[in-house]
Amino acid sequence: MFASRTAQIAPFRVMEVLKTAAELESLGHRVVHFEVGEPDFSTAPPIVAAGQAALERGHTKYTEATGIKPLREAIAAHYAAHGVSVEAQRICVTAGASGGLMLLSALLLDPTDELLITDPGYPCNEVFARTVGAEPVRVPTSPNNHFQPSWADLHSAWSERTKGVLLASPANPTGSMLEPTALREIADEVRAREGVVILDEIYQGLVTTPTYPTGLTEVPDLYVLNSFSKYFGMTGWRLGWVVVPDAAVEGITKLAQNLFISPSAPAQYAALAAFSPEAMAVHEERAAIFRQRKDHLMQGLQALGFRIPVAPDGAFYLYVDVSHTGLDSLDFCDRLLRTHHVAVTPGADFGDQHAERYVRFAYTTDEASIELGLERIAHALQERG
Amino acid sequence: MFASRTAQIAPFRVMEVLKTAAELESLGHRVVHFEVGEPDFSTAPPIVAAGQAALERGHTKYTEATGIKPLREAIAAHYAAHGVSVEAQRICVTAGASGGLMLLSALLLDPTDELLITDPGYPCNEVFARTVGAEPVRVPTSPNNHFQPSWADLHSAWSERTKGVLLASPANPTGSMLEPTALREIADEVRAREGVVILDEIYQGLVTTPTYPTGLTEVPDLYVLNSFSKYFGMTGWRLGWVVVPDAAVEGITKLAQNLFISPSAPAQYAALAAFSPEAMAVHEERAAIFRQRKDHLMQGLQALGFRIPVAPDGAFYLYVDVSHTGLDSLDFCDRLLRTHHVAVTPGADFGDQHAERYVRFAYTTDEASIELGLERIAHALQERG
Repeated sequence: MFASRTAQIAPFRVMEVLKTAAELESLGHRVVHFEVGEPDFSTAPPIVAAGQAALERGHTKYTEATGIKPLREAIAAHYAAHGVSVEAQRICVTAGASGGLMLLSALLLDPTDELLITDPGYPCNEVFARTVGAEPVRVPTSPNNHFQPSWADLHSAWSERTKGVLLASPANPTGSMLEPTALREIADEVRAREGVVILDEIYQGLVTTPTYPTGLTEVPDLYVLNSFSKYFGMTGWRLGWVVVPDAAVEGITKLAQNLFISPSAPAQYAALAAFSPEAMAVHEERAAIFRQRKDHLMQGLQALGFRIPVAPDGAFYLYVDVSHTGLDSLDFCDRLLRTHHVAVTPGADFGDQHAERYVRFAYTTDEASIELGLERIAHALQERG
Repeated sequence: MFASRTAQIAPFRVMEVLKTAAELESLGHRVVHFEVGEPDFSTAPPIVAAGQAALERGHTKYTEATGIKPLREAIAAHYAAHGVSVEAQRICVTAGASGGLMLLSALLLDPTDELLITDPGYPCNEVFARTVGAEPVRVPTSPNNHFQPSWADLHSAWSERTKGVLLASPANPTGSMLEPTALREIADEVRAREGVVILDEIYQGLVTTPTYPTGLTEVPDLYVLNSFSKYFGMTGWRLGWVVVPDAAVEGITKLAQNLFISPSAPAQYAALAAFSPEAMAVHEERAAIFRQRKDHLMQGLQALGFRIPVAPDGAFYLYVDVSHTGLDSLDFCDRLLRTHHVAVTPGADFGDQHAERYVRFAYTTDEASIELGLERIAHALQERG
């Protein structure tokens, strides 16, 4: 009755976590939330004010399918400030990075094409590939390769049907970044095979050790996926963008017209204020807070004996090896939540590769909650001791 | 390099119309716009105020993937007011009807499946089918069948690969509604073949002759597509919904989680106010205005010798036969715009079926502009006379 792809979608384990956490909270318990892949901050006040003003002025109608020109120009200026020249016409504003990934999948993947993705990685990537009829192929990564595939890793998975590769830097759930030299080598080899490289940079700006601001400095013909959700704190508005090579502008414009009509008008006018000095100051302050939390949580977990084999370069995640507890990660998550009221996401949500060893901690909660979480985890370990 | 579906997307002729109209306006000419498929009214003040208040309260984060519960309940109550019982859990709030059509396509269509669509019809329908790898099959309609297919029409196009049929009532570009008996017969026959019927009701409420409020009164297991864009005047917010049978709730929820994360949060909180008595009064007033404009434009065009073979039952379109001018519809549109500064959309944007005879007039402009447009068209005809 339903398309076969629906049976291939694994349920998110984190949904069970969220449900159990909500039940505990309805019983009056305080739950520490390390499972949420969303900044705990609301949208910065200058953006909210701009959104309200846009509504006041009646910006409630369809816009150009690829986004209003001033916003595409503001994004181009944002790249220019990072030393990269990206013409506004190569930028397509989208309904979140989700909308961007849909457009790129529809643009690039024919049914039966294969798309290489990383394991672990963002769980929805393979659903986008399957939605357009293509086949996602998981390429294992590990701490040995900084949770990022080398060209050799990708090469061994490359087949005659492979159309390209979807990478992320910083990545979810590991926070690891791809080395510039590795990215260049991958792009050269993929280009030689007439394939495409999509780089997910939705955590751009949320970095611990600023190495390179965007992969476009290294590889100008990348397909780049970005978002106003994370660094700019606009998750619920559903606004993102993609950067495509010149040759792809016509195709992505036609697809955006047909599949989306336009991105949200109020969100676009609000996002114009996201680049103002006032808003940027808020974003930078929050990025600094994430860095402090990362240090706090990482040191706390390490002091409790947890191994974090790859220290994150960015995003707001720690991918933590829990094997020293003697529990597999699903059991670990379940017991930690039910008995100690601390919510984390099991590795199984992000792939198969040693998923039983890993859980993802998101430091999208305040310092006091992080401290409380660490105390509860210490208590949990003592009980088992 | 690009997916083959991109080459199959015909450019919208209306984009050329819009571009030429903008050029004329930049030269100081006043253009009468009958080409725009969007209400000319901004969103009703109570909805705007609710959106602003939602931003003030910090509703800027992800919501449940299928929409916040109060909004799904409000939509369920909207159906109840029309005498149809639809449980809130069968309602999935989407990123416009576009988001809904993407979800239904991903849920229902496997690659190589065929989907029957109408010709003429909404031009993007076939792009959604192709995006998931399926094949759209155009079923011709004509004034003889009220621009709506009978089961006999659909039957002759039904193949072993056919998965279902996408209908619209009221339809774009014709404004015609499907007869309840025809809908029931189609649904029975399709169900007997284990197929699905999707009914696009995005113009619900914008009707001239209220016959039945929703196809769900006739066929409870329909897949229904709806939107806050047209009757509720929220185009630019990008918010809609689908109603699915119970068995499809799990599948569409998983797809919504993976492909969209959530609909726009500010738009959802704003839409809660769309059902308030104050907002409903605005919507009804505007629906009445559309009915008046329809009469004005239809009578005016008929007085000038244009044939409108099917008077619309709803939406805000007239599908007008221009063959008595001696021009095909592309030439007619081009000359009318360039020489007389009246913009309409050629039939070719909606399919192949006698497209050379028809143009679509949208009465999404005020009475004075309609009068001016009619005067200019009269002048154009005299010149050729």
